[in-house]
Amino acid sequence: MAELFSEARSVDVVAASFAATPDLRLRRIMVSLVEHLHGFIKDVQLTEAEWTNAIRFLTETGQLCSATRQEFILLSDVLGASMLVETLNNRSDGVLTESTVEGPFHVVDSPVRALGATIAGDTKGDPCLVTGTVTDPDGRPVPGATVDVWQANAEGFYDIQQPGLDPEQNLRGLFTVDGDGAFRFRTIVPRYYPIPDDGTVGELLAATARHPNRPAHIHFEIAAPGMRTVTTHLFVAGTPYLDSDAVFGVKDSLVREFPTVDDPGRAAEAGLPNPFRTVNFDVVLQPSTKD
Amino acid sequence: MAELFSEARSVDVVAASFAATPDLRLRRIMVSLVEHLHGFIKDVQLTEAEWTNAIRFLTETGQLCSATRQEFILLSDVLGASMLVETLNNRSDGVLTESTVEGPFHVVDSPVRALGATIAGDTKGDPCLVTGTVTDPDGRPVPGATVDVWQANAEGFYDIQQPGLDPEQNLRGLFTVDGDGAFRFRTIVPRYYPIPDDGTVGELLAATARHPNRPAHIHFEIAAPGMRTVTTHLFVAGTPYLDSDAVFGVKDSLVREFPTVDDPGRAAEAGLPNPFRTVNFDVVLQPSTKD
Repeated sequence: MAELFSEARSVDVVAASFAATPDLRLRRIMVSLVEHLHGFIKDVQLTEAEWTNAIRFLTETGQLCSATRQEFILLSDVLGASMLVETLNNRSDGVLTESTVEGPFHVVDSPVRALGATIAGDTKGDPCLVTGTVTDPDGRPVPGATVDVWQANAEGFYDIQQPGLDPEQNLRGLFTVDGDGAFRFRTIVPRYYPIPDDGTVGELLAATARHPNRPAHIHFEIAAPGMRTVTTHLFVAGTPYLDSDAVFGVKDSLVREFPTVDDPGRAAEAGLPNPFRTVNFDVVLQPSTKD
Repeated sequence: MAELFSEARSVDVVAASFAATPDLRLRRIMVSLVEHLHGFIKDVQLTEAEWTNAIRFLTETGQLCSATRQEFILLSDVLGASMLVETLNNRSDGVLTESTVEGPFHVVDSPVRALGATIAGDTKGDPCLVTGTVTDPDGRPVPGATVDVWQANAEGFYDIQQPGLDPEQNLRGLFTVDGDGAFRFRTIVPRYYPIPDDGTVGELLAATARHPNRPAHIHFEIAAPGMRTVTTHLFVAGTPYLDSDAVFGVKDSLVREFPTVDDPGRAAEAGLPNPFRTVNFDVVLQPSTKD
């Protein structure tokens, strides 16, 4: 007969219930989850009222999720779990472009756009030319690489937070690099913004006296056949909250100056009003391994 | 400037974000949660695909919850978390009636019934007389104690799993003990049953080759002014799954024989057909402390 549950044997008894799991990886995950979950409950001697509140919190978090809102990703983000998973799975070894969290706003497809096109339509804000290349660690261009970008506007809002927005002004774009591995597009400089704080994650941040803001950034997801996809941001140097990102996404290597160019010729060439801001982002991808 | 996030510093950086939490208890809980959550992710080197699946699983778990279904409590139950919280907060010291999980089926109020009444109406099953007393640790009756009971039927279903059921046959009842601290009611012997396994918890159990069954039991919640409420079950000796309860709720002290009585006089006195089953449950409550 199996041993019955007790405080002292809780981990052993529950872990044993997973002993027949056919997928050994899943078995390892469940046993570790039980160890850490029970360890947490014992460490803090969780009360029944706190457990009831946790059930209520998790239930509401799930019920807030919709086609355009992912409150569990937000929760993972503010606990540093998203950033930890991202970091463990994308060690850059000082050569590759560093990754950061995907965030909860990549829930709609980016429209395919031609190199040099704008992702901002006539959205107001400081005009900006973004350029860059996609190469392998030896500096060779990566043909066929796609550069998926999305960002908030100059007031700090994503398209999906603005019902009725013209799709051409949605601040999203999917570009394919040219034969030299180069990409370029026009946009506006994004603003810092608060993550959605009218749900359970906002409740947690308020109760713990944490602000909900993220420093200004442009999201990138760069993919190519035979290469590992990198999900990352470009942060605007000097933006507020660089040292206290609500989701812990900032890495030094991802912060860039966005200098102003005052040159009517270059502005005309870029298709932007003069003066305009610029930023360059050279991305280094790693060849895929078999695992 | 605060330190930026890295794999090595992840716990310190995220724990530091909770440093200004005004409620020191909440601060302690969040710091411990971060330690164990990050510890789990690092221990198993959680992949991005696994993280995505976890977000999907938690989201669906929340969205399955309704007025009559609580999938997060079920999840807590099958991970032994509910039982651990219950056990930590209700140490019995060998004298008090031991507690077990409340489970997800106590989501509707039990109808107030007179002592000796049936909770089963004409629901089919082996008729059973349940008797008992509620006393303090010195054996003194606890006047005013209420005995809230709920159970599955002889097919293993709760009322809320059977839409359209006559409320008089719902297998729930709220009784108040008499001046001697005694209670008695009529019912039928419940059957073992599977917890709802058509949701995310069922998916987890199937993937880990765990059965979803709970041994047959009657739920009790016994409360009285000035005493700690005890939430527990009475398990039917000999029921299948006593040693592998899907929610780890079984304790030796809560398993009882339900002997058959073949005595027309006693049957008439109890208001039951002859023969019938019986069980006695003497409950010992602890005086409340100020905390």
